[in-house]
Amino acid sequence: MTGTPLALSLGDPAGIGPETIAEAWARREEEQLPVFLVTGGASLLRTAAASRGIDLPVETIADPQEAAAVFARALPVLGTEDGEWAPGAPGKDGARLALASLEAATRLAVSGSAAAVVTGPIAKGRLAETGFTHPGQTEYVAAACGVEAQDAVMMLAGPQLRAVPLTVHVALAEVPRLLTPELIVRRARIVAAALERDFGLLRPRLAVAGLNPHAGEDGKFGDEEARVIAPAVAMLQAEGIEATGPHPADALFTPRGRARFDVALAMYHDQALIPLKALDFDEGVNVTLGLPIVRTSPDHGTAFDIAGKGLADPGATIAAIRMAGECAARRTAGRNL
Amino acid sequence: MTGTPLALSLGDPAGIGPETIAEAWARREEEQLPVFLVTGGASLLRTAAASRGIDLPVETIADPQEAAAVFARALPVLGTEDGEWAPGAPGKDGARLALASLEAATRLAVSGSAAAVVTGPIAKGRLAETGFTHPGQTEYVAAACGVEAQDAVMMLAGPQLRAVPLTVHVALAEVPRLLTPELIVRRARIVAAALERDFGLLRPRLAVAGLNPHAGEDGKFGDEEARVIAPAVAMLQAEGIEATGPHPADALFTPRGRARFDVALAMYHDQALIPLKALDFDEGVNVTLGLPIVRTSPDHGTAFDIAGKGLADPGATIAAIRMAGECAARRTAGRNL
Repeated sequence: MTGTPLALSLGDPAGIGPETIAEAWARREEEQLPVFLVTGGASLLRTAAASRGIDLPVETIADPQEAAAVFARALPVLGTEDGEWAPGAPGKDGARLALASLEAATRLAVSGSAAAVVTGPIAKGRLAETGFTHPGQTEYVAAACGVEAQDAVMMLAGPQLRAVPLTVHVALAEVPRLLTPELIVRRARIVAAALERDFGLLRPRLAVAGLNPHAGEDGKFGDEEARVIAPAVAMLQAEGIEATGPHPADALFTPRGRARFDVALAMYHDQALIPLKALDFDEGVNVTLGLPIVRTSPDHGTAFDIAGKGLADPGATIAAIRMAGECAARRTAGRNL
Repeated sequence: MTGTPLALSLGDPAGIGPETIAEAWARREEEQLPVFLVTGGASLLRTAAASRGIDLPVETIADPQEAAAVFARALPVLGTEDGEWAPGAPGKDGARLALASLEAATRLAVSGSAAAVVTGPIAKGRLAETGFTHPGQTEYVAAACGVEAQDAVMMLAGPQLRAVPLTVHVALAEVPRLLTPELIVRRARIVAAALERDFGLLRPRLAVAGLNPHAGEDGKFGDEEARVIAPAVAMLQAEGIEATGPHPADALFTPRGRARFDVALAMYHDQALIPLKALDFDEGVNVTLGLPIVRTSPDHGTAFDIAGKGLADPGATIAAIRMAGECAARRTAGRNL
């Protein structure tokens, strides 16, 4: 691993972000995690850790470069922003702290002082009340990098599956008219390049799902496969990208189906999220492809209902940290070739 | 188990139906399977079995009542219809035999001479060429029972999940306008009654999925949850049915989500089929609810590409036989109360 730390944002302090970060630090050796720091929340993290029986040593640092020396004995926290730990009771102060932490962590990654940013779960509604104008953290991070939101591509990755929803937070009725060959090709290119650069896959295999049951069964139910998806796959293949499809979506996610691709391109949110969460719920990572920085996140929300109760599984946070470290290391190696 | 046998149809003789039936009979003791017979295909079944190294004794019987006495020593085959075993090479003769076998097995169940019908996989296109006018076997069996096709409800069941798609073989773009409170309520009632009668669940818990991502997130993406699904759930609850929802579909199929319901009601084909096949591919059973007879089927197709190669997994056929036997036994017990 490089000496440059990862930067973790706290997430909403009323959610499970802080306690899962504390657990991840406590398991840093057994999980062989790369060095990370947290932007703000020193006392809050200690209190959250104590609720899970973790005696968490925290050291406030002034420069990210100090993190590596501190990490073995304490959780390095950069900066003095802090707040109250109020599990299950979200408020404006907490949302403000979550935003400050997100901004600081992102800035570190953009400037190169952090190797990647790992964002904790926030409540979008709460953040909006503090004047946050982005639909979510992905769009915020894209803007901070100067990348158009539509070119920041969300991929969900777990031990058994990687999947990219090509449309995301829109009504299902809107999906058919939003799908175009251009959209599919543009995002698929970003996915293919990122799997090569950040995930070390030579000629990654992209499986493109159909939209309709049985991928339309030769046009019997819906024509989007013939009109939109197949032309996109042909264009990708013509560029030398290993794309196949359109595949019937239910066959795609069987054990045999999954063995044949590196990433599935889904036409809508639930087509990607249903199999990912059914198979890999506690270890799902949300990674943003197409950015000049590496950004990952645990694929779960704030879970206000279980925060502070010792129930939150840190698996996804640990997986997000590990994946961020691996992607960052591959980028560094790539630059040094 | 009752002395009345189950009736199995062969499925298309070019597919994996015959060999999986032979495997199921060979494992009848270790799997503790109920007595079954096959309608036709005596020599074909023997050849298919030999291809998997099974020396299959077959006894042709003239009356279903003979099956119980034969079953321990040989696979009982009712009737003399037979044909050639041509794995991977479907043809008209095979389709005709598949249809004759389906008709005979269904007739036995309708007349009460068989405790249930377990249908083998057919190729719908091939069957249509022989003059079969139903979209699939489910509609055929419904018609043979005098039940409207829309009241024969397909449920997919595996060890980890039961799911019912409320719309099935239609384009995804059609789904939003096909969903009505009446459709949901009508099918949910059939599901609730069948889970009680055939699956022995007292007050079965029905989880109704949303249509849109995050179940619309309070109307942000789509209004079908508020306009169609929530009213249907309220109507069901008012009737005393344990229905909940609309639930975000990706949360519904996580391990924690699945622990909270007995059956998921999905809004469209892939919403039910994706998680079922991702989790339970080799043991998925298709069961038709709402019929006066018990009908199950392995939840896979003819798989012409692997037929005769020793690759077909008999798990789903064995699961379909076991489930048919259990449902039939519960109905018999219910009648004798």
